[in-house]
Amino acid sequence: MLSHEDNLMLTRTNAGTPMGELFRSYWIPVLLSQEVPERDGPPVRVKVLGEELIAFRDSEGTVALIEPRCSHRGANLFFGRNEGGGIRCAYHGWKFDARGECLDMPTMPSETAARLGEKARIRAYPTREWGDFVWAYMGARQPAPELPQMEFALLPASHRHVSKKFQECNWAQAAEGGVDTAHFSFLHQPVASGDDELAEKAARATRGYSQKTMSADHVRWMRDDARPRYEVRKHGSGLVLAASRRAGPGEHYWRIAQYLMPAHGYTPSATEGQTYHGQTWIPIDDESCWIYVYSWNPTRPLTDEERASYRSGGAVYPEMDANWMPLRHRGNDYLIDRRMQRSENFTGIVGVSEQDAAIQDSQGRIADRTRELLGPTDIGVAQFRRFMLDAAKTLAAGGTPPGLADAAAYHVRGGGIVAPADAGLEEVMKMRFGDELGRVRATASEPVASR
Amino acid sequence: MLSHEDNLMLTRTNAGTPMGELFRSYWIPVLLSQEVPERDGPPVRVKVLGEELIAFRDSEGTVALIEPRCSHRGANLFFGRNEGGGIRCAYHGWKFDARGECLDMPTMPSETAARLGEKARIRAYPTREWGDFVWAYMGARQPAPELPQMEFALLPASHRHVSKKFQECNWAQAAEGGVDTAHFSFLHQPVASGDDELAEKAARATRGYSQKTMSADHVRWMRDDARPRYEVRKHGSGLVLAASRRAGPGEHYWRIAQYLMPAHGYTPSATEGQTYHGQTWIPIDDESCWIYVYSWNPTRPLTDEERASYRSGGAVYPEMDANWMPLRHRGNDYLIDRRMQRSENFTGIVGVSEQDAAIQDSQGRIADRTRELLGPTDIGVAQFRRFMLDAAKTLAAGGTPPGLADAAAYHVRGGGIVAPADAGLEEVMKMRFGDELGRVRATASEPVASR
Amino acid sequence: MLSHEDNLMLTRTNAGTPMGELFRSYWIPVLLSQEVPERDGPPVRVKVLGEELIAFRDSEGTVALIEPRCSHRGANLFFGRNEGGGIRCAYHGWKFDARGECLDMPTMPSETAARLGEKARIRAYPTREWGDFVWAYMGARQPAPELPQMEFALLPASHRHVSKKFQECNWAQAAEGGVDTAHFSFLHQPVASGDDELAEKAARATRGYSQKTMSADHVRWMRDDARPRYEVRKHGSGLVLAASRRAGPGEHYWRIAQYLMPAHGYTPSATEGQTYHGQTWIPIDDESCWIYVYSWNPTRPLTDEERASYRSGGAVYPEMDANWMPLRHRGNDYLIDRRMQRSENFTGIVGVSEQDAAIQDSQGRIADRTRELLGPTDIGVAQFRRFMLDAAKTLAAGGTPPGLADAAAYHVRGGGIVAPADAGLEEVMKMRFGDELGRVRATASEPVASR
Repeated sequence: MLSHEDNLMLTRTNAGTPMGELFRSYWIPVLLSQEVPERDGPPVRVKVLGEELIAFRDSEGTVALIEPRCSHRGANLFFGRNEGGGIRCAYHGWKFDARGECLDMPTMPSETAARLGEKARIRAYPTREWGDFVWAYMGARQPAPELPQMEFALLPASHRHVSKKFQECNWAQAAEGGVDTAHFSFLHQPVASGDDELAEKAARATRGYSQKTMSADHVRWMRDDARPRYEVRKHGSGLVLAASRRAGPGEHYWRIAQYLMPAHGYTPSATEGQTYHGQTWIPIDDESCWIYVYSWNPTRPLTDEERASYRSGGAVYPEMDANWMPLRHRGNDYLIDRRMQRSENFTGIVGVSEQDAAIQDSQGRIADRTRELLGPTDIGVAQFRRFMLDAAKTLAAGGTPPGLADAAAYHVRGGGIVAPADAGLEEVMKMRFGDELGRVRATASEPVASR
Repeated sequence: MLSHEDNLMLTRTNAGTPMGELFRSYWIPVLLSQEVPERDGPPVRVKVLGEELIAFRDSEGTVALIEPRCSHRGANLFFGRNEGGGIRCAYHGWKFDARGECLDMPTMPSETAARLGEKARIRAYPTREWGDFVWAYMGARQPAPELPQMEFALLPASHRHVSKKFQECNWAQAAEGGVDTAHFSFLHQPVASGDDELAEKAARATRGYSQKTMSADHVRWMRDDARPRYEVRKHGSGLVLAASRRAGPGEHYWRIAQYLMPAHGYTPSATEGQTYHGQTWIPIDDESCWIYVYSWNPTRPLTDEERASYRSGGAVYPEMDANWMPLRHRGNDYLIDRRMQRSENFTGIVGVSEQDAAIQDSQGRIADRTRELLGPTDIGVAQFRRFMLDAAKTLAAGGTPPGLADAAAYHVRGGGIVAPADAGLEEVMKMRFGDELGRVRATASEPVASR
Repeated sequence: MLSHEDNLMLTRTNAGTPMGELFRSYWIPVLLSQEVPERDGPPVRVKVLGEELIAFRDSEGTVALIEPRCSHRGANLFFGRNEGGGIRCAYHGWKFDARGECLDMPTMPSETAARLGEKARIRAYPTREWGDFVWAYMGARQPAPELPQMEFALLPASHRHVSKKFQECNWAQAAEGGVDTAHFSFLHQPVASGDDELAEKAARATRGYSQKTMSADHVRWMRDDARPRYEVRKHGSGLVLAASRRAGPGEHYWRIAQYLMPAHGYTPSATEGQTYHGQTWIPIDDESCWIYVYSWNPTRPLTDEERASYRSGGAVYPEMDANWMPLRHRGNDYLIDRRMQRSENFTGIVGVSEQDAAIQDSQGRIADRTRELLGPTDIGVAQFRRFMLDAAKTLAAGGTPPGLADAAAYHVRGGGIVAPADAGLEEVMKMRFGDELGRVRATASEPVASR
């Protein structure tokens, strides 16, 4: 439960708000690289943190991210022509480059144009391409921080898959779904009697997600223990969120998520050798967000079968149209099937990503956290909120929030493991990751390179 | 004409408003029983008096009407699973029954769950099924009043037909259309020269309504006397609204409507032995309402022909889609046909219900009653407003508004009759209903039973 | 650049605003005559300057323009029946004529009706038909001014073509597009290398507009000189806005537009003998407008080919549906074709009118003029603003704004000419129009008559 003021602080991200400034102090993904494929290609609209911008790839291959308002008379540069090092306004031909500089004012006498200089500049944000996303730095502090050394981006493109998905609610409640692993005991559960049926229905309702990463055992452990024990640890770039459930005799099933500043979450299911998944929640405005999604395997290229699954709604990916709009959405009640809800799975909705979206959206456009009854299984959610509010306040007070000065601290993993019931979190982390906080030590067998 | 303040009081029905509290002090229909047909079936959304609720039929057959916000973390119970005595939230499995009690908090330690108890309860309203509607009592006073002894509900199901229809304006101006019988001289009139043509066109434009309940004589009397004499009488549950027009030599044609608290209206056309019709105006919010409609015959089962007519737009029923949305509505100008308006009927719109909706909606989402010019034919409308405002003030002052303590006073009828020109209202009422206020004395020949 | 206050004054046109009162002090077009073709025909909705009205042609052929709210109980007269000298409300039959007078109150006793008289009147505006438009005078000052003696209206119907088009932005930025001839160097330019290709592509992208009124020479001159020299002169009804570009050796290409109060603009392209075009920007509300468009040839009837071109998107006309809604609009990004933008024309949008709409709409629903960088080519725009603001202030101070007392001053023309480089504006105007301000002296060869 939060006070009204804290709920506002957590959820509001326009320029000038504490949380908005926190997001702006990090590099954040704003596009898939594939959305601006061509040099001198058409501009695309980008709305991020409440700001309406356009992006285009210039003649050098740099992705420009600029305010779309021509400084001459305010025409929208979205209708402009991207040509030879910048975009030219369609009204009177003023031309702007990726740094926002006005390169040409053909309707102005050259001496006036020269004199205007800085006054004609428009707002522009630096970008980088990293892990097949376009990242932007929208902050004021200089120099910009380093790019976060997230593993999916460090690997060769063959080892990762990336996409994005639209969600119709505030970023924070979507992110809370990522740090809350307790909901697996309900939201994603099949409705079944025997174990065989359980595995089969789980595979069906989650589009093979469970089949690949979870056995009937895993599903059963989650169903049978609805009160996982939560433990949270801070590290250089964020939080480790671990939850353990009773498993076989003398064993616990641990699921360990990562939350990295300002809004990256790694899922807790992957066991050693399996493919990892992550999500990054980036506000479009305070009532909708783009969730950037990525999967990676540090030890091998992803298979065609994996990619096909991700493209058709497997793992953290929903079924989507060509504009990354989920086919199951707020407007059609996620195609909920009440017959399926009675006899197949707990929601009547197909797909893990879709189930998450449905229940997160259902908390409202912006969840009201002033009326809640949190318990021990909500510790992850509570710590996430506290962590974000503290970071925003730290930044506002002139300090440096977590991860900003330590790009290497982003090289971590999350995942699952079955461990002896008497093992503590540190021991379990070392068993699973070789490090008590999930940090990766790059080895010769893991290629480190990216576009 | 009303002051701005009185217009606000008449039309605003959210919780805490005087009119909103008046509605909440009575049982009011909130669904058709057929909308929640199955025990443990899917929940449906219900919006009433500005409150967003859900309804579902539980394992015992009781219809639950509850606030849809899970008290754990605010997920919407609409996506929940209706199972074994309550609905279970799809996020973390908290379960609520028809009284709003939290039956299960599987993510909470049992001692915490026990301690929370009342704090975990959600808002819930008691319901009853009566006359094939689901009625709710949303008021604070205890005990709840008795169900209104309306005749359609007292009869066996074979003797009645019920439905509902959506309307896109404030409840009060729709209700005013029900108490205003003067508009029959225009709004529902055919445009014709001779009597034969008159009857034929009236039947066509009103989908047989006039043909069945009104002769060419009735239509002509209404056309020829646009200034009916109004008389209004109060009774135990509401108002009798009588209007008389000149008919044949030495005769008057009386049309007598009933308005029952808080928002039921009976139509004034039925002559002895004919089928009666009623409408109940229930605000969804202050700019739209559900109108519950019902037809009944005290002396015989309704015929298949009658039911077929009601399902296809006869009497007080519009042509509708499967969701009770009229096919002719604000968004398509009620399919007004200007050629028909010139030569067939006064509006160019087909259907009595559609004609009413068109003209009532046209007064605005919420009619502005501060600019009006009322005359003697508007006495019914004026008295209705005064009656409602007085009742709201009575309740607010701690008193008991009409009908609340006298469920039997709802057993009344409205209808039409031709009487000698010198007969007064009391005499006419006795001629038509055997009672000066239209009250029904149940006889052995009229079965009294309902679901 | 304008102050925030001046931008508000320029763009706000509701009743009571300075610019709104300025518009109301002139006759302005509110409909095409063809929209109310029939006597006693159906009423149509008209929204103008933020006022919601209805229009209908009465039995005498006069077009009524009235407030649609029945003074009895506020039903909308749009649903009324237009019959015998007025429109009758569908609710209770009150009837109103073109002057707003209540002719009949059938539900009222005759003595009450007589007493009410003026109180029952509704708002009504006088109209005239002129040049196949319905014009209204919505001002308070009496007597109303004379109708503006615009040439297209003075000619026989055979010599003109009229239409209208919907645009989704404030009137003033659309009008600015009309007085700004500098944008021809970009917005409407083909992208081509050689002259032959230039002419061909210009014809294609502008749907023959350039082909007919501009040679490849004209197009090239506009492309090659992006900084036309502007000169502006005031006259009795508005402004002459002239811009000259370098043309052949020792020659200048002059394009001379007219802006007439309150919101008429004549295009600058027509050379002697060619067909003229005009546009009149009339606010629907402050975020959209109807642009009334007209073409005329003073010396001959328009050809079938010309009319066919105007109906299919030539000249100042966009491709439209039957309701004058352009097929290319804000909601579909004007069907911008990025491939075409790369290799055919500067916008990738087909049609001069569509290109104008796209870039004007792109300035926002209401352009923000507090952030601009105006230069010498924006002199026309700057003077237009100053002229309008001055006129609004003149009116507010009790004075007479330009043109109001001089209907004959509207008989002017705009157009283009190639002139010796050393000729001044006055000389050029005389060469092109026989008058230094473009005024027309009617001759025997030019018929003066209209409907």
